[in-house]
Amino acid sequence: MNLPDRIVTDLDFQTCRPVSSGAEKWLYRPIQCLDFGFVYLVDYMGNDEAIVKAARVSYGRGTRKTTEDRGLIRYLRRHMHTTPSEMIEVKFHCKMPIFVARQWIRHRTANVNEYSGRYSEMSNEFYLPDPNVLRKQSRSNRQGRGEELTPEQKARVINLLKEDYGRGYGHYREFLGEEIDLARELARIGLSVANYTEWYWKIDLHNLLHFLALRLDPHAQYEIRVYGEAIAMIVKDAFPIAFEAFEDYTLFGMSLSRLEKEFIRENAWPISESAVQSLILQKFGNKRETEEFMVKLKELRLVI
Amino acid sequence: MNLPDRIVTDLDFQTCRPVSSGAEKWLYRPIQCLDFGFVYLVDYMGNDEAIVKAARVSYGRGTRKTTEDRGLIRYLRRHMHTTPSEMIEVKFHCKMPIFVARQWIRHRTANVNEYSGRYSEMSNEFYLPDPNVLRKQSRSNRQGRGEELTPEQKARVINLLKEDYGRGYGHYREFLGEEIDLARELARIGLSVANYTEWYWKIDLHNLLHFLALRLDPHAQYEIRVYGEAIAMIVKDAFPIAFEAFEDYTLFGMSLSRLEKEFIRENAWPISESAVQSLILQKFGNKRETEEFMVKLKELRLVI
Amino acid sequence: MNLPDRIVTDLDFQTCRPVSSGAEKWLYRPIQCLDFGFVYLVDYMGNDEAIVKAARVSYGRGTRKTTEDRGLIRYLRRHMHTTPSEMIEVKFHCKMPIFVARQWIRHRTANVNEYSGRYSEMSNEFYLPDPNVLRKQSRSNRQGRGEELTPEQKARVINLLKEDYGRGYGHYREFLGEEIDLARELARIGLSVANYTEWYWKIDLHNLLHFLALRLDPHAQYEIRVYGEAIAMIVKDAFPIAFEAFEDYTLFGMSLSRLEKEFIRENAWPISESAVQSLILQKFGNKRETEEFMVKLKELRLVI
Amino acid sequence: MNLPDRIVTDLDFQTCRPVSSGAEKWLYRPIQCLDFGFVYLVDYMGNDEAIVKAARVSYGRGTRKTTEDRGLIRYLRRHMHTTPSEMIEVKFHCKMPIFVARQWIRHRTANVNEYSGRYSEMSNEFYLPDPNVLRKQSRSNRQGRGEELTPEQKARVINLLKEDYGRGYGHYREFLGEEIDLARELARIGLSVANYTEWYWKIDLHNLLHFLALRLDPHAQYEIRVYGEAIAMIVKDAFPIAFEAFEDYTLFGMSLSRLEKEFIRENAWPISESAVQSLILQKFGNKRETEEFMVKLKELRLVI
Repeated sequence: MNLPDRIVTDLDFQTCRPVSSGAEKWLYRPIQCLDFGFVYLVDYMGNDEAIVKAARVSYGRGTRKTTEDRGLIRYLRRHMHTTPSEMIEVKFHCKMPIFVARQWIRHRTANVNEYSGRYSEMSNEFYLPDPNVLRKQSRSNRQGRGEELTPEQKARVINLLKEDYGRGYGHYREFLGEEIDLARELARIGLSVANYTEWYWKIDLHNLLHFLALRLDPHAQYEIRVYGEAIAMIVKDAFPIAFEAFEDYTLFGMSLSRLEKEFIRENAWPISESAVQSLILQKFGNKRETEEFMVKLKELRLVI
Repeated sequence: MNLPDRIVTDLDFQTCRPVSSGAEKWLYRPIQCLDFGFVYLVDYMGNDEAIVKAARVSYGRGTRKTTEDRGLIRYLRRHMHTTPSEMIEVKFHCKMPIFVARQWIRHRTANVNEYSGRYSEMSNEFYLPDPNVLRKQSRSNRQGRGEELTPEQKARVINLLKEDYGRGYGHYREFLGEEIDLARELARIGLSVANYTEWYWKIDLHNLLHFLALRLDPHAQYEIRVYGEAIAMIVKDAFPIAFEAFEDYTLFGMSLSRLEKEFIRENAWPISESAVQSLILQKFGNKRETEEFMVKLKELRLVI
Repeated sequence: MNLPDRIVTDLDFQTCRPVSSGAEKWLYRPIQCLDFGFVYLVDYMGNDEAIVKAARVSYGRGTRKTTEDRGLIRYLRRHMHTTPSEMIEVKFHCKMPIFVARQWIRHRTANVNEYSGRYSEMSNEFYLPDPNVLRKQSRSNRQGRGEELTPEQKARVINLLKEDYGRGYGHYREFLGEEIDLARELARIGLSVANYTEWYWKIDLHNLLHFLALRLDPHAQYEIRVYGEAIAMIVKDAFPIAFEAFEDYTLFGMSLSRLEKEFIRENAWPISESAVQSLILQKFGNKRETEEFMVKLKELRLVI
Repeated sequence: MNLPDRIVTDLDFQTCRPVSSGAEKWLYRPIQCLDFGFVYLVDYMGNDEAIVKAARVSYGRGTRKTTEDRGLIRYLRRHMHTTPSEMIEVKFHCKMPIFVARQWIRHRTANVNEYSGRYSEMSNEFYLPDPNVLRKQSRSNRQGRGEELTPEQKARVINLLKEDYGRGYGHYREFLGEEIDLARELARIGLSVANYTEWYWKIDLHNLLHFLALRLDPHAQYEIRVYGEAIAMIVKDAFPIAFEAFEDYTLFGMSLSRLEKEFIRENAWPISESAVQSLILQKFGNKRETEEFMVKLKELRLVI
């Protein structure tokens, strides 16, 4: 991997701003993602205590003594009082394949400065998947991956991609060369969506956690999940209480629909797996929802 | 071009909502953009009068008699009172190359539903530029195009792109075929950014006009400007007064900086072109700004 | 109540746009809220089918046959694929006390044109609560209401408010009168936050449902909940399938935290109420969370 | 004025983040605004150099040598490449009358935590204008102030406001007292919009400058302009190059419409004031626009 030049700062600076020691240690320390990508923390504003301070503005001074900080942060998360966590901001430098960038950019509540193929030359870096992550189309999940490929199939895919990347980049270089000197904005249109791009990405903590909730989900494409996990590692150290609350109430939580609540209420538990499925289907009238509910009941060990 | 199936609606519907006759005639009528792309109006909310009505809520009833509608809409635009024009909404179905979509999506204040290469197969449609638009890298403008290529250079570019598109799509089909059956989300990573995608795009009129201001600009990449022009054609018919005000005060307007104002104030006009340049440079101390100001002075015919 | 002049439109218009018959019947039909307030639908874009169409763009044509519309809309809601519901837009004219407007405006993802006290005179309309809704400060809920006042207390409150409103408005009129002729923007600063204001408010369906989730909540202040309920009535008719999905998965759903899931998993159900409370407290170490979980367990009838 | 407790931090902290020495000196140093209000800087992210760094991501490394930082920041502003300035974030604690807060909150692209009158008691602080700022309704400007009041008129206004504030707050206290113990969320509805509220307000530099452009404008209400000026003072020290560019290209710039450009182009300058007015009116057909243009021509000294 080509990591960014470590911006060494032997000089520490003095500041009167709130500091997060967990965030400080991640500044300018890239985490490798995929083959040529990375994520590192460029700057941050605030810490767990800053969430508390913002909440105290809303809820007044009376709350100061009785509630301790951790309890307040958890309370805010549990009741979706999200504005205090918007008072924290983080900025990352990220490098990723274009097809990952295209999923990522859909999160609109962020500020972005992306590398421009009109101004600058695109690099000869293309995402070549590790053979282990090459899998067949999933049958149950229209957007997911299923069983493994055979070694021969893997080799065939890798070889074709590698060849196409090389040839495509060669042509790009030819277009830009003295002989043709094609405008950069045109020369790059033949490059594949596996080509790497990079950007500065700045977002507040509330919206970042929403991003993570979607991108850490097992249904997210593996290649963006890798970035979600790298960012989560940093955020966990930087804002440990807020991140723990996010895990407890959002990431590892569960939601029950109106029908699911009714079904639990109307039955005596536990019920055997063989009996419960047809009961649910009868009530829900929808096979997919029935299956989804079965998964939840098993997780709660209400079916035996 | 593969235009979308015309969604023929012999049946007109009855509605009590405000109607724009200029917008009605563009509903479901695609305008071709580039080789396989299009834009068409899917739905709209409001008309010029709706801007006036929203403004009247703010400014109260006293305004009703004295100011006529056109004058009010122009006044709002001139003084950047933009909220009334946010009360109009338009929805388009657009199809464009991925590299165009990537510039377009940077306008965050819009709603988007894009075709997904994880759920569905990408089509065998790739943007192949018309030979006339293939040009060399501009020397004066780092993001632009300059002189024409020779016929041989054009042919070389077109041929290489065409070959790469064909080969890349062939490999994509092989990946998806029974033999390998690679997950769609992986198979597509070798396709180029010239591959077409499509989306529904919904935006309010204020933000749409801002989009147009940027994308109709001569510095915008030709391939997205084509879409800007198609949309402008529709908007001009749909909201003629608001669009005219946008042209008069924004698109065909000019801004002067503090230094430029001072320079005009401090000199007697007209001045000869030969004399003025060094005077400006002396004041501005910046070659680029001097050139930009020269262009403005010529446009105003203050230099002779 | 001073309802707005019914904007009678004997003339129906012809349109090729999608129509929602449920929405049409609510156009320009104000619902009274509080003593002088109202909400009515000014315009809308789209219908339930428009959500489906937008989703089909993302998920491609293959989905067309297998999934029917209602199932797809419910699936989208269940899995928080919210972008298709952003493709619907609604516009309301609302009149409400200033303190309600101040809570309302915190929902930022909307377009607003508010009546301006700088341009126009404020009306002599102030919210005087119905005696039935006057209640004591809640002890358990720092932001809520508790027991009823006595008739004497109610009368005292009503009388003082009425006097202050009258006196304050009298002074406002004096400030604006010929004798003093104070600028409107200054004269209004003595008026209370119970004074009515009005605005046009435009929002997409996804963000509107989020607004409703917060404002229909029993913890929302009664005076804004009234508006939430009026809007919900309109939305339910206008987009019945989307609204039903919102009720089933969000409004009448329930969420379980990581600890709550674990607690259910680790115990055999049902458990007696007397036994369960200390068990939870032991695990959670937090009294407030324990109480919140008890409420959920009772609702699920897992405690007896 | 009740300034906030100075959060003295004898301890400076170490950080590896970019520091702005101009911003550091404003941290926790309140600037008084109006009689009981203030603004102070709570936290910030980035400095002028951070804008440059973000821009360099987009424009690539080639730009590094040729353009120096100040030139780049000015270039970005001049050409409305605003995304790099979004990479800076600032957070303020502000206290202001409710009617000022209501204008302020209309800037939606910000994060806010406001003091809540449902949770906490409102203070006995109400904005009482300095007699010098009490002025008559402007005749030329429907939203502005004109000539001075007489001393008697001023005294009358001040006295009535003072009485109403005192009486209103007395009733508020009575409502909250043991005798009645009315819910806080109801008790406060009789308080005037001159009552002070406070909030944490966080915004990126691009949107902050847009806020300042509107709120430093002479047409903005004096009472919010005071806050705009306090914030501008801080921003000028914190991000001096970006602020200077904002002044040069936006605040002290001028825009010309299509018609105004044409008029300058079609005439020989200078022209006498007596001659020019009817010429413009003839071309523009709009009295108001003619007057606005006359002001510009005088500022440019093109009329004599």
